[in-house]
Parts: sequence; C-alpha cells; structure tokens
Amino acid sequence: MNAPIEFFFDFSSPYSYISSEQIDDLAKRHGRQVTYHPTLLGAVFRISGMRPLTEIPLKGDYSRRDIARSARFAGLEFKMPEPFPISTVQAARACVVLQGDRPDLARGFIRAVFRAYFVNGLNIATADVFRQVLTQSGADADAVLKAIETPEVKDKLKAMVDQSIAKGVFGAPYFVFDGEPFWGSDRLTQMERWLATGPF
Amino acid sequence: MNAPIEFFFDFSSPYSYISSEQIDDLAKRHGRQVTYHPTLLGAVFRISGMRPLTEIPLKGDYSRRDIARSARFAGLEFKMPEPFPISTVQAARACVVLQGDRPDLARGFIRAVFRAYFVNGLNIATADVFRQVLTQSGADADAVLKAIETPEVKDKLKAMVDQSIAKGVFGAPYFVFDGEPFWGSDRLTQMERWLATGPF
Repeated sequence: MNAPIEFFFDFSSPYSYISSEQIDDLAKRHGRQVTYHPTLLGAVFRISGMRPLTEIPLKGDYSRRDIARSARFAGLEFKMPEPFPISTVQAARACVVLQGDRPDLARGFIRAVFRAYFVNGLNIATADVFRQVLTQSGADADAVLKAIETPEVKDKLKAMVDQSIAKGVFGAPYFVFDGEPFWGSDRLTQMERWLATGPF
Repeated sequence: MNAPIEFFFDFSSPYSYISSEQIDDLAKRHGRQVTYHPTLLGAVFRISGMRPLTEIPLKGDYSRRDIARSARFAGLEFKMPEPFPISTVQAARACVVLQGDRPDLARGFIRAVFRAYFVNGLNIATADVFRQVLTQSGADADAVLKAIETPEVKDKLKAMVDQSIAKGVFGAPYFVFDGEPFWGSDRLTQMERWLATGPF
C-alpha cells in the first residue's frame, strides 16, 4: 500500500475548499488514501508574517476574483462568504474529536463545514450553524461541543498545528506525500503527474 | 484581430521566466499576440507590503523547490541563480529602449536575459554579462547602455511601472486580456480554457 497523501487545510481557506472537493478522486485514481490535517492559518501567519490574501493591498481584489474563477474552473459551486476570514478553531477541534472518536463521520463533517461556509454562505463560527453542521454530519452535537472545550482536545489541536508548522506548512491547502510538498489548489496537476509517473 | 495578451514580468522572477517560455505558443494557438511589459517588483512590493518569496519564513524553502519543480513540469532548463533576487532596473530600461527603437530585437533580448540568469546562472545585473546579452541579442550595446542613462528612458520605465501598479499588477508574471487578470505561471491552464471557450 502506498503512503497516504497528507492534506493540511484550514476551514476558512477557499482554496482548501476547492482542493477538498477534488483530492479524494485524485488520490483514488492512483491508489492512495488521504489523511486530513486541520490546521490554523492564524497561527502559521504569526510566524511567516503573511496575511489573509484578501487583506493584502492590490492582491486582495484579484484574489477574490481568482478564488471564484478557480472554483468555476474546477466545476464547483462557490459563493464568497461574509464575514471572511473567520475563526475556525472550533471546527478544527471538532474535526480532531471526530477523527478520534468517530472516524467514519470525519470526512463527511469536513465536507459539510466547507460547503456550509463556501457554498451556502453560513458562518460556521456561530453556535447555531456549527451545531447544525455537526448534527447533519451524523455526530452527537452535544458530546462534540462538550469535548472541544476540554484541555485534552485543545492541546491535541495545538500540538497538531505546531507539528504542521514544524513540517514547513506555511499555508493551505498544503499536501505532502513521498516526502514531496505541494502548496495550493493549483498544484493538483503537478501532484497528478507525480503520482502517475513518479518524481519528475 | 483579437486584443493582445498583456504580459507583465520582472527579469528577476523565476515564474516569469517559466511563463515567458510558454506564453508565445499559448497565444499563437488562439490567434493572439503578446505585449511584453517589464515591471519592477521592488516598487510593487513597497506598496503591497509583500517580499520576495524566497525571503519569507517557512515559504522560502518551499518556493525554491517549487520553482525548480515547476520548471521541470514545463519541460524547461532551469538553475536557481545566486545571487537572487537581483536588481533588474537596467535590464528593464534596456527592454524599453529596444521596444521603442528596435522592436524586432526586443523579444529575443527578453528571452536572452531570462536564459542568461535562470539557465546559465549569469548575474545580468553585472556590466559584463549585461553587455554580452545585449550584443548576443543583436543590439548596439554601446547605444543601449547610453540610452538607459537618459532621463527620458528612466522616466518612461517609471511611468510604465506606475501604470502597471495602477492596473493592479501586484506580482509577476501577471497577464491581462479581455479585461480579465491572471497572476502566476500556474494560471496558464485557466488562460488557455478562457481563450478556447470564452469566459467561464
């Protein structure tokens, strides 16, 4: 069995949403699994000195246009949400909880969070929406909401974010397999060739 | 006749080099011309607060790897030059001179500058190399070296850079056609579809 594709993402990253809708099929075409790693770009940006794309002078307007076009290019539904970006720490902690306790629900939860925010424009950082997405994903919302307030879960996510930074993950989406890192939804084409033909 | 593809580039931008080796063929496939606009990323970065990729914590190491891989992906020769980045103001001014006085030589000069730096590792900001590239391009090196010191040429490039910033060019390579902007060598696939099928 080939090693899985490690996929680092932030729930507030539109290019992560775009990739998350494509990466499973891509991996399957080449006999790979995908391992999902929620990370927090806020923590990463504090180290790199980077900022959310949409807040950078000149680049901001372009990036909004590019995000929407890149979604259409991939054949995906997309609507730029407001507010943007938002805190994704709760969603990331819930992801950690489900990956531990209900791994069968984790992938569906990730998809539901991304689509709630980037397709339906729902603010997943608000309590109502967050609970709704958990329930729709088949999770026990009360249990998850309780778990994400525990020091164990908080520490676990913090450790995961620290590990991702230690691995060099400076943005999202970020992929690693066979020791090779790929950053950005626009690197899926290079990943596909790498998987098909080996290192180039 | 369709409007040309406007191509904004900096001679010190490796992704601009990669694009410059592909854009003419891409344009030709869709009955377009390419208009080359030298710009200076240093001036752009002062406004956007951005920095050269390779100098950003975490992102720097990745970007060196990605640049080399992206060149191989495109089937191009490439060697990361040292020093990097370098001042490209002289080369940009020479480009302006040739585009005005010897437009037949300008495209060849652009190609020669990029290849000297990114294939042969020659520092195009040094006098010897710069003169050599001018001569190889068929230009009258003495005349060009004299012209780039005149206020007219300096002002002309400055005006071009200001115009590019006013158009929203925040990085390189940056392309505009039919009112649609595309940033990055990895957007050539989206450009190709746009040209083939119209807006999507």
